[in-house]
Amino acid sequence: MVFKKKVSDPIPSELRRDLVTGDWVVIAKERAKRPSDFAAKREGGPPTCPTDDPFRDPQASGNKDPILVYRDKDKQWTLQVIPNKFPAFTQQGECAVPRPVGPYEVMDGRGHHEVVITRDCDKHFALLSSTRAAEVIRAYHERYNELKKDDCVQYISIFHNHGREAGASVVHPHSQIIAIPVVPPDVSRSLKGSGDFNKREGSCVHCVMLNWELEDKSRIIFENDTMVAFCPFISRTAFEIRIFPKEHQAKFEDLDPKNFADLGDALQKSLHQLYRTLDNPAYNFFFHTAPTDDGDYSHYHWHIEIIPKTVIWAGFELATGVEISTIEPERAAQFLRDAK
Amino acid sequence: MVFKKKVSDPIPSELRRDLVTGDWVVIAKERAKRPSDFAAKREGGPPTCPTDDPFRDPQASGNKDPILVYRDKDKQWTLQVIPNKFPAFTQQGECAVPRPVGPYEVMDGRGHHEVVITRDCDKHFALLSSTRAAEVIRAYHERYNELKKDDCVQYISIFHNHGREAGASVVHPHSQIIAIPVVPPDVSRSLKGSGDFNKREGSCVHCVMLNWELEDKSRIIFENDTMVAFCPFISRTAFEIRIFPKEHQAKFEDLDPKNFADLGDALQKSLHQLYRTLDNPAYNFFFHTAPTDDGDYSHYHWHIEIIPKTVIWAGFELATGVEISTIEPERAAQFLRDAK
Repeated sequence: MVFKKKVSDPIPSELRRDLVTGDWVVIAKERAKRPSDFAAKREGGPPTCPTDDPFRDPQASGNKDPILVYRDKDKQWTLQVIPNKFPAFTQQGECAVPRPVGPYEVMDGRGHHEVVITRDCDKHFALLSSTRAAEVIRAYHERYNELKKDDCVQYISIFHNHGREAGASVVHPHSQIIAIPVVPPDVSRSLKGSGDFNKREGSCVHCVMLNWELEDKSRIIFENDTMVAFCPFISRTAFEIRIFPKEHQAKFEDLDPKNFADLGDALQKSLHQLYRTLDNPAYNFFFHTAPTDDGDYSHYHWHIEIIPKTVIWAGFELATGVEISTIEPERAAQFLRDAK
Repeated sequence: MVFKKKVSDPIPSELRRDLVTGDWVVIAKERAKRPSDFAAKREGGPPTCPTDDPFRDPQASGNKDPILVYRDKDKQWTLQVIPNKFPAFTQQGECAVPRPVGPYEVMDGRGHHEVVITRDCDKHFALLSSTRAAEVIRAYHERYNELKKDDCVQYISIFHNHGREAGASVVHPHSQIIAIPVVPPDVSRSLKGSGDFNKREGSCVHCVMLNWELEDKSRIIFENDTMVAFCPFISRTAFEIRIFPKEHQAKFEDLDPKNFADLGDALQKSLHQLYRTLDNPAYNFFFHTAPTDDGDYSHYHWHIEIIPKTVIWAGFELATGVEISTIEPERAAQFLRDAK
């Protein structure tokens, strides 16, 4: 079959190949253009703090005692970490070992599931004071390093859901830390990609990518002394943002406490610009870092990914793993830089 | 650190390892239990056909002439395939070749994007007559085999979005066919998994899995002479359904036309039981089949996956690629078998 060539039509999309995983993403340039096309379209407006907020006084709402509490100079709590009331993973029993079931392998959900709560229900992460924002990073770091001591744990995921459309079932700002007995598939693939690149090229693939972004500048949103936030060239989602430490560092646990404030700052600035550009969208952010075992992951480079809920993953995305992102990351970054 | 062992608490979840990809999924048994916990929670009820339905008379709504039309004995069209008005991939120009941009590779979005429309706006797939359902399969097959002749195409994805929450922007039932110049990441991974298994075990990994499911029976929803529908042991989503041809067959294009009716039947029965169990949920279904090039994919086994929109992928899922599926597939299958 010979297809008609209508060379006058512009080609509506391009594929870009992820340097780490080798996956292709699709940037569909002609389909949507303005931030308003992506802005929060929610029925009934953004969620507001309910009178029965379960995290106003977590223990009064039936939660267990906190694992960690930070207090201000008046001894009021400013942040607490509690066990998740409905854990997806629990810490009882021995380390999980795969057992056969038919042709499959099965393991117990051995691990940890904690919730990090900041005090004020109406202050989402971007609205915290810089001191309180740095305190959240400190809590992540402290709990990460503690959970890492459990030999049953292979990977620790720190993440934050904001807004119902992003899966937040409680309005009160909170993050979650889940420690699991396997290395999850998406992380395995990134590790394999960065390991292979390192063997082939003798360098950290993330550093190559970062250096190019810092030189090219068109996708940079914000930088301070130690951190940089940008819309990646291979964005899988419209207005996706990643935050990297500028210097090579494989593991989040190696972050120097003196840089907690810089990371909090970069995260706050990024979320603030998203808020302004997309009218307080629902979003998720999460850390990607090396597994907790003793393997050599020196080729990896930890970072944060922020994914605003701008699109629904439909049949094509679910079938292929390729998202058709409908704005070029260069334009998204420009909107995010310019939003007042 | 020694964690307290509370062995009296039940372990709330288990991990199951996908036989094809090696990925772990999480089945969180204790978190939600009844179909009503997953049933469609939509504001304003299910979408209804608007008076300005753009697919009532596609050409009058500014769409191009159909690529394929089927008609009934009164010469009225019953199904038509049209070019997508807002294509993500177009067919102009030469075959795309990757070009370097910084450290990355970029390709033009060379391909095809078609829409398959059945006549009646109010008859979603499960409500079609069996003749019309088989006709949809015939159209998929006919277009697949035609698009395959384009040497620029590497993979053809056939998928269907039902309901706004599943990304359907038009209420009128329609499927899409997208032909792309790369093998998408999720398909690459499955191919690698089934190829590796075949080398190691000398058999088709999907056949091993199917034979076990057919013997175990607990996750089977429906079968006819040539097709079987079941909730896979390694379901990534609550109430996920997969439909496989019982006999080994690598490629959808090799499906014998005499079995179109059986495939239509299995797809209709599955969607009907979803409709009854989850109160007309939004869903996506899509084909997974071998790439269109001349490679040896005899180890693969084409199939359909149906993913109802029962959950939101939040921070943990986005961070890890591991979904915490909140119902055991054995229970989901039982509900789907029993729904009246």
